[in-house]
Amino acid sequence: MPLGEFEIITSYFQRTSKRKDVLLGVGDDCAVLSPPLGKTLLVSTDTLNIDEHFFPDTPAYYLGYKSVVVSLSDMAAMGGEPAWLLLSLSLPDVNSNWLENLSQGLFSCLDAFNIALVGGNISKGNLSITTTILGFGEHLLSRNKAQIGDLIYVTGTLGDGGLSLAFLKNEIPREYFDSNESNWLKMRLFKPIPRIHEALAIRGIANAAIDISDGLLIDLRHILDASSVGAILNAKAIPFSNVLKKLPWEQGLNMALTSGDDYELCFTLPPEKVEDLKEIEQKFGYQFSCIGCIEKEPGIKIKGQGGELLSFNKDGYRHF
Amino acid sequence: MPLGEFEIITSYFQRTSKRKDVLLGVGDDCAVLSPPLGKTLLVSTDTLNIDEHFFPDTPAYYLGYKSVVVSLSDMAAMGGEPAWLLLSLSLPDVNSNWLENLSQGLFSCLDAFNIALVGGNISKGNLSITTTILGFGEHLLSRNKAQIGDLIYVTGTLGDGGLSLAFLKNEIPREYFDSNESNWLKMRLFKPIPRIHEALAIRGIANAAIDISDGLLIDLRHILDASSVGAILNAKAIPFSNVLKKLPWEQGLNMALTSGDDYELCFTLPPEKVEDLKEIEQKFGYQFSCIGCIEKEPGIKIKGQGGELLSFNKDGYRHF
Repeated sequence: MPLGEFEIITSYFQRTSKRKDVLLGVGDDCAVLSPPLGKTLLVSTDTLNIDEHFFPDTPAYYLGYKSVVVSLSDMAAMGGEPAWLLLSLSLPDVNSNWLENLSQGLFSCLDAFNIALVGGNISKGNLSITTTILGFGEHLLSRNKAQIGDLIYVTGTLGDGGLSLAFLKNEIPREYFDSNESNWLKMRLFKPIPRIHEALAIRGIANAAIDISDGLLIDLRHILDASSVGAILNAKAIPFSNVLKKLPWEQGLNMALTSGDDYELCFTLPPEKVEDLKEIEQKFGYQFSCIGCIEKEPGIKIKGQGGELLSFNKDGYRHF
Repeated sequence: MPLGEFEIITSYFQRTSKRKDVLLGVGDDCAVLSPPLGKTLLVSTDTLNIDEHFFPDTPAYYLGYKSVVVSLSDMAAMGGEPAWLLLSLSLPDVNSNWLENLSQGLFSCLDAFNIALVGGNISKGNLSITTTILGFGEHLLSRNKAQIGDLIYVTGTLGDGGLSLAFLKNEIPREYFDSNESNWLKMRLFKPIPRIHEALAIRGIANAAIDISDGLLIDLRHILDASSVGAILNAKAIPFSNVLKKLPWEQGLNMALTSGDDYELCFTLPPEKVEDLKEIEQKFGYQFSCIGCIEKEPGIKIKGQGGELLSFNKDGYRHF
């Protein structure tokens, strides 16, 4: 007899949490939580759908992991401290092995950031995973605080998620990468790093931030629109991984500017805080790259290798 | 050109909220909220999937309405005060008229309970609606506090959701009901009432509670299992609507015991609180029916019309 909804919950998703602020976790109609005094509450939700956000043959472990990352990345974009997660899982059928792997990937990411799974829902339907993250904030980052003259930074390297997707879809010749490189690429897509630690480190000095889930240009544009400013980017300064560098430069740049699924942060910093940022970089070993600055004129200008202005007719991933 | 994700959000889901505890609502990476001091936070999530939870031709207005009800009903089960909702919507394509109707149904239910839509997500996929409700609690109801000797109560009438579904699927002869009755039935399925007000009224006196979303027997069993007790029910005392009464009695009873989608509350009450409950009933005009009591022996016994014990081999809706 296949497992029912309640057996799935108790078998794979009900674990005692170490967090003392979980008064009642998985297993009742609501989770009962104790938010800390004097902090605001942050909440965000995100969904991964089969065929649209992942291939049907994506290993369940990585699906579980990534379903947490996509929500954590939104928490990072605001500089919040994640605490509790809810999971809503729609499944076409019940496969114990698959569920075991999904649950392991999910808890692996939750444990890495000291987050408790506090509730959720399991129902029949096309494969779809919705996670809702709750956390706390102080000195929040938002999209609408970018100031003219701010420097624009990103964490990590850009375009690897898009390159990985193109590689898996055979749009990039196999011979470009050896097996180490293709494995590394796969992990950039399957197991991206939510920049929670970096966000907590910069939240006192940065002005505005967003996570790059749909592509640098489209996500930066949200900051610009919300702050009523524009930006000029220096294409040469956009950080490429060694793997992305193997593509022709313009193709790599296109990936870095317009492909989604990187989950890096983009933030703006007042020039007087550059030294503070360098200290953080050195102390924790984080990688921050200054890729441009905020200016008054609306829109995004991109300076190419020779200082000429480039034009892009596509700006990133769009859901419809 | 079809609307994109961000245009859909601003056109249909971004409204200024009257709630002062919403510091930042729809439109950034996270919602920023200000929970009240001294209360615990309650969270719950629920999903409605096409074909599994609703017919493809269900009017969008009712889908929007009901997607709020299913989460609110979980909040009611704990005696919480709902405050904020997140919506994750997966759509196969964009239909402005459909979205407008969905949004009207959603806000209609939110407004009725003074809840703010504070965030969410829209992506491409099979039609699926996940809502996450956040609220506050004091004197919470839970599943594990039922005591031997407690009386078992339900709100409203049971079985109408199941009857409505059977009627729409032509499993019940059309001639059973006139057009008023069939319209009433349809509304019981499409626009059920989340028992938030009733839950807030009883939370100081009831011991345990759950909402009846999967069927009385299966949901009551959750209380019994969590509280390590059993129950004896009096079939004659189970409240039937006038419409359900038109079925042969045993068929009606079967609906009332095992069909889901009613969203009534089931709660247990210490006998010394019966007078308090009567006062609440009279003051607010709520309908509470005592249908049995909690006993030591595990399991659920059901006494029939002549006092004989009935047996049921099915106990409610199961997702797999």
